[in-house]
Amino acid sequence: MTTRQYTQRDMEAMIRIWNEVVEEGVAFPQEECLDMETGRAFFAGQSYTGVAEADGEVLGLYILHPNNVGRCGHICNASYAVASGARGRHIGEKLVLDCLKKGRELGFRVLQFNAVVESNVHARHLYERLGFVQLGTIPGGFRMKDGHYENICPYYHEL
Amino acid sequence: MTTRQYTQRDMEAMIRIWNEVVEEGVAFPQEECLDMETGRAFFAGQSYTGVAEADGEVLGLYILHPNNVGRCGHICNASYAVASGARGRHIGEKLVLDCLKKGRELGFRVLQFNAVVESNVHARHLYERLGFVQLGTIPGGFRMKDGHYENICPYYHEL
Repeated sequence: MTTRQYTQRDMEAMIRIWNEVVEEGVAFPQEECLDMETGRAFFAGQSYTGVAEADGEVLGLYILHPNNVGRCGHICNASYAVASGARGRHIGEKLVLDCLKKGRELGFRVLQFNAVVESNVHARHLYERLGFVQLGTIPGGFRMKDGHYENICPYYHEL
Repeated sequence: MTTRQYTQRDMEAMIRIWNEVVEEGVAFPQEECLDMETGRAFFAGQSYTGVAEADGEVLGLYILHPNNVGRCGHICNASYAVASGARGRHIGEKLVLDCLKKGRELGFRVLQFNAVVESNVHARHLYERLGFVQLGTIPGGFRMKDGHYENICPYYHEL
């Protein structure tokens, strides 16, 4: 398993993996699926987009970008997606570790997650094991597919 | 003192007040001052822009907009600015109270502040008195004018 910057050849797999998480509707704020055109623009617009690859196949990806402007522009934000068929293989952990390294290299000083769903215990345990600090809980911060609201937990990690 | 939606006639005063806070460099993430063109677009692009007025003079303003997209799009974010010559007259409090009301009216469910500078005790006491809950502290989240970093405290308030 290796992590590297994405290329245009990865685009189809990246969009498929991203859209899986969008359609699950339990982790990303985004509700709109990407197509080839919006996907190209979306991934190109990031500070960095990384993929995890094994045996020539893209199994996961992450996006990294500033979380705010100007005087808070040194805080970055990221999202991670792992193909549903490749979960449980610690690909998420590799993506987060690579993301922390890239964020540091790009000059960011803090990585902040804005909206980790409280019930997403798998992600939260991973983040906590990697040293992320929880910033309390925002009640009802995430609207699930059936319309009920779940709490979200912001996290940060100094870089 | 009254609060109301802004009009184009308020634009010059609003831009002056906004730019004062930008130039002070201790509260807003933004580092770029607004001019008439960028100001018009900026204020028109908000979910709501309100002003506080006394004796026909605009003394403060706030902007209100979604803090995130899609499944977190019911969380809003706001910024407040009071003319330097009009501070200490509880205009900030009137703006925040009006903002909580407008946020609710617009269908938002949570108002979140992302980057209240820890040393801005005046603002923090006001927010806490009005029922905002602090979401921990992000170390070094705000770059001051001299280049040193100060901690920031996110806050939220249910609507």
